[in-house]
Amino acid sequence: MEVDHQIRVSDGNGETTAGHGAVGGSIFARCWQRLRSVPVELWCRVAGFARKVGRIAREDPRRVAHSLKVGLALTLVSVLYYVTPLFKGFGVSTLWAVLTVVVVMEYTVGGTLSKGLNRAFATLVAGFIAVGAHQIANRCGAQGEPILLGIFVFLLASAATFSRFIPEIKAKYDYGVTIFILTFSLVAVSSYRVEELIQLAHQRFSTIVIGVLTCLCTTIFVFPVWAGEDLHKLATANLDKLAQFLEGMESECFGEKATSENLEGKPFLQVYKSVLNSKATEDSLSNFAKWEPGHGKFGFRHPWSQYQKLGALCRQCANSMEALASYVITLQKSQYPEANPELTLKIRTACGEMSSHSAKALRELSTAIQTMTVPPPASITMSAAIKVAKGLRNELSEDEALLQAMHVAVTATLLSDLVTIIVKIAETVDNLAWHAHFKNPEKTQKDIVIDIQS
Amino acid sequence: MEVDHQIRVSDGNGETTAGHGAVGGSIFARCWQRLRSVPVELWCRVAGFARKVGRIAREDPRRVAHSLKVGLALTLVSVLYYVTPLFKGFGVSTLWAVLTVVVVMEYTVGGTLSKGLNRAFATLVAGFIAVGAHQIANRCGAQGEPILLGIFVFLLASAATFSRFIPEIKAKYDYGVTIFILTFSLVAVSSYRVEELIQLAHQRFSTIVIGVLTCLCTTIFVFPVWAGEDLHKLATANLDKLAQFLEGMESECFGEKATSENLEGKPFLQVYKSVLNSKATEDSLSNFAKWEPGHGKFGFRHPWSQYQKLGALCRQCANSMEALASYVITLQKSQYPEANPELTLKIRTACGEMSSHSAKALRELSTAIQTMTVPPPASITMSAAIKVAKGLRNELSEDEALLQAMHVAVTATLLSDLVTIIVKIAETVDNLAWHAHFKNPEKTQKDIVIDIQS
Repeated sequence: MEVDHQIRVSDGNGETTAGHGAVGGSIFARCWQRLRSVPVELWCRVAGFARKVGRIAREDPRRVAHSLKVGLALTLVSVLYYVTPLFKGFGVSTLWAVLTVVVVMEYTVGGTLSKGLNRAFATLVAGFIAVGAHQIANRCGAQGEPILLGIFVFLLASAATFSRFIPEIKAKYDYGVTIFILTFSLVAVSSYRVEELIQLAHQRFSTIVIGVLTCLCTTIFVFPVWAGEDLHKLATANLDKLAQFLEGMESECFGEKATSENLEGKPFLQVYKSVLNSKATEDSLSNFAKWEPGHGKFGFRHPWSQYQKLGALCRQCANSMEALASYVITLQKSQYPEANPELTLKIRTACGEMSSHSAKALRELSTAIQTMTVPPPASITMSAAIKVAKGLRNELSEDEALLQAMHVAVTATLLSDLVTIIVKIAETVDNLAWHAHFKNPEKTQKDIVIDIQS
Repeated sequence: MEVDHQIRVSDGNGETTAGHGAVGGSIFARCWQRLRSVPVELWCRVAGFARKVGRIAREDPRRVAHSLKVGLALTLVSVLYYVTPLFKGFGVSTLWAVLTVVVVMEYTVGGTLSKGLNRAFATLVAGFIAVGAHQIANRCGAQGEPILLGIFVFLLASAATFSRFIPEIKAKYDYGVTIFILTFSLVAVSSYRVEELIQLAHQRFSTIVIGVLTCLCTTIFVFPVWAGEDLHKLATANLDKLAQFLEGMESECFGEKATSENLEGKPFLQVYKSVLNSKATEDSLSNFAKWEPGHGKFGFRHPWSQYQKLGALCRQCANSMEALASYVITLQKSQYPEANPELTLKIRTACGEMSSHSAKALRELSTAIQTMTVPPPASITMSAAIKVAKGLRNELSEDEALLQAMHVAVTATLLSDLVTIIVKIAETVDNLAWHAHFKNPEKTQKDIVIDIQS
C-alpha cells in the first residue's frame, strides 16, 4: 500500500527529481523510523495472534482436547515402530498405520468412524480386485503385463472417479472411492516388481486396521465428541434463537413498554441470522451422526434426518423473520401520526399476542427436544396464536377497501425493497468492472473529447 | 419395509398362529413369486442406474473428461514404475508419486493447484523440521531417542491440529497442515530405523513433485476446467435468473395480459430458488479461483472476492423475491372485488414498471459481466425504477390513514405467515418425538386410566 501510494505521488509530482537531496534524506529518516517500529509491530501481531488462539480455545475447549487426542493417537501408533518385536511382524508397512491415523482422525466420533470404515473396506475390496488383475496380467508375459496393468488402472480409475459425481456416493462414500483408486493403483502397479504381493497386501491391510482401531479407541474413549449430540444441541439452540426474536418483537414493538427509540442496533433483530447459515454444519453433522453407534440418550437408529427437516423449517422461519425485521426497521424510521388509533391498537395487540404465543410454543418445543420428552400437543399451544391470526384476517377482510389497497400496497412495498437491493447489485458490478479492468465499449475517441469539454 | 410391515400384521392379528398350514403355503407361494420377480427387478434397477449415470454425464460432459484425465494421469505416473531405468533412480518411493496423483487431482485447475502446492510445500517444510528433530534426538542415546521423538511427534501434531481450527488456516491451508503432520510423523518415526534419512526425504519430495507436476499438466493442458470461469458463469446465470423472475412478475401479475389463473405452478416463481442455495458452490469456486494463474479473459489478480460480494447480494435479492412470491400466491388465492379500482390500477402500473425496469437493469448487468464490458451507469437504468418507487411511496403517504393501517397490517400479515411456519415446526418436532421414542412426561398410570375412560 505504502509503496503504491509513493509511486502515485512521484508520478504526479514534478518536484521529485528536482528536490532529490531533501527527498533522499526524508526517505532515510522514514526507513529508520519504520525499522525502529518493526519490533513493536511484530510484538503486537504476536500478541494479537495469541489472543485469537486463546479465544478459539476458550470458545470450545473440546478443540484443545481433540488436538491432544491426535497427538496421543500418533504417539501410540508410533510405539509399534519403536518396539522391536512388534516391528519385525509388520516391517516398513508400519508407516501405513501412522499415515492412517493422520488422515482418518476427525473431530467427531461419526467423522472418524465414517472415514475409518471407508478406508478399511475400500482397501480390502480394492486389494482383492488388484490381486485378481495381477493374476490376469501375469499370464500375458513380461511384455504384455505392464500394458495390461496400465489399461486396468486407466479403466478402473476413470470409472471410480466418475462414480464420485453421483450424489449418493459423493455424500457417504467419497473418501472410500478415493482410497479404492489409491489401493488398486498401488497394488496393481507394485505387483509388477514385488514378488510377495499377497503378503504386502495383507500387511498393508493389517496396519490400516491397526491405525483405524487406534483412532477409534482414542476418539470414543477419551473425551468423545459425538456429532449426534452436537446436532441435537444445534436444533434446540436454533429454536431458542427464533423464540428470542419473537420475544424481542413482543416487548420492543407491540408491548405496553414498546419505545419508539431506534431498533436497528437491538440484539434481538440479529439473533436469527446465525440460523440462516446453519445448513452446512447441520448437513455434515447429520451425515456423521448416521455413522455413530448408540450413545447416551441416543439409540442406534435415532432419526437424524428429522433434524434436517426441522433445520430447513427453522431456516424458512428465519427467512420470514428477516423480512419482518427489515420491514419493522423501515417502519420505525418513518414516524406517522396515529391516523386510526382504534384499528392500530387492535392490530398491535393481536401482533403482540401472536408473538408471545409463538415464542412460548417455540420455547416448549426446544425444551421438549432438550429433555427428550414428548412436547405438549401443538394444537393447544399454537391454537391461541392461530385463533388470533384468523381473527385478524377476518377483521381486515371486513374492510374490503382497506384490504384491497393493502394487498397491492404490500406488493408494491416488497417490490421497492427489491429495487433497493438491485441498486446495490449494480454498484457491486461497477466495482467488479473497475477492479477487473472491464473494457469500455462506448469510449471511442470522440466520446473522450466530449467528456473533456463538458 | 416389507418385513417390518409383515411383523406388524402378525403382531396385531391373532389368526397367524391358528392358521399355520395355510400361512406356510402362502409364504412358499409368495417366496416363489418374489424369486421369479428378482431378475426383472434387478434389470429395472440396473436400467435406472444407467439412465442416472447417463443424465449426470450429459448434464456436464466435462465430468467424463475429468474421469478420463484422472485415469490418464495415473497411467502416466505408473510408467515411471514400469520403465526400469527410471525405477532405479527412485526405488520404491515411486509409489508416492502414484499416491500423490490420486489425492491431489481435483476437478478444477485451482483445486489441483491448491492441493498440489499445499502438499509440496508442507512436505518440504515438515521434512526439514523432522530431520532437525532427528539430529537433536540422535544425541540422546539409543534409549532416549524414541522417547524424545515420541514427545516431538505429540507436540507438533497437537499444535498443528489445533491450528486447523483457525478459520484463515482452515480456508486455505487445511490440506497442507494435514500433510505437514503426516510427513513430520513419517520422517521422524522412520528416522529411528532408516539409516539414509536425507536420501529418503529427498526421494519422497522428488516423487511428490513429479506427482504434482503430472496432475498439473493433465488438468491444465487437457480440457482444463477453470474454477474462475465457472464462478464467472455462475454470477451471470444468477443475475439472469433474478431478471427472469421479475420479467415473469411483470407479464403474469401486473401486465395487461395478466391472467387470474393459478400462479402456483408457474416456472418463474421457482427460478430464484437455485440462487438461494448457491453459497457453498460459490465459496469453494472463489477459493480455488484465487490459486489459478491468469487464463483467457482473466488476469492473475482478477478480483474474485467481488464475485462473492455480488453473490451475497443476489441471495439477499432472492430472499426478498421469496417473500414477494409467497405473498403474491396467497393474494391470488383470495379473490376480492375491486374496491378501489383507481388506486389499484395506479399501483399495479407502478409495480409493472418497477419490475420491467429492474429486470432490464439485471439483464444489462449480466451481459456486462458476460462480455466483460463496463455496464451502462446504474443511475440511468435504475433511475426510472427508483423514481417510480419514490412516487409510489409519496402517493401512499398522502393517504395517511391508509398508510398507517397498511403498515400495521403488513406486520400482522408477515407475523401470521410466521405462525403458519411455526405450526409446521411443531409438527416436525412431534414427528421427531415419535420416531426417536421421546419419553412422555405426563403419562402416569392415572392418566392412562383417564385416557381409556374418556
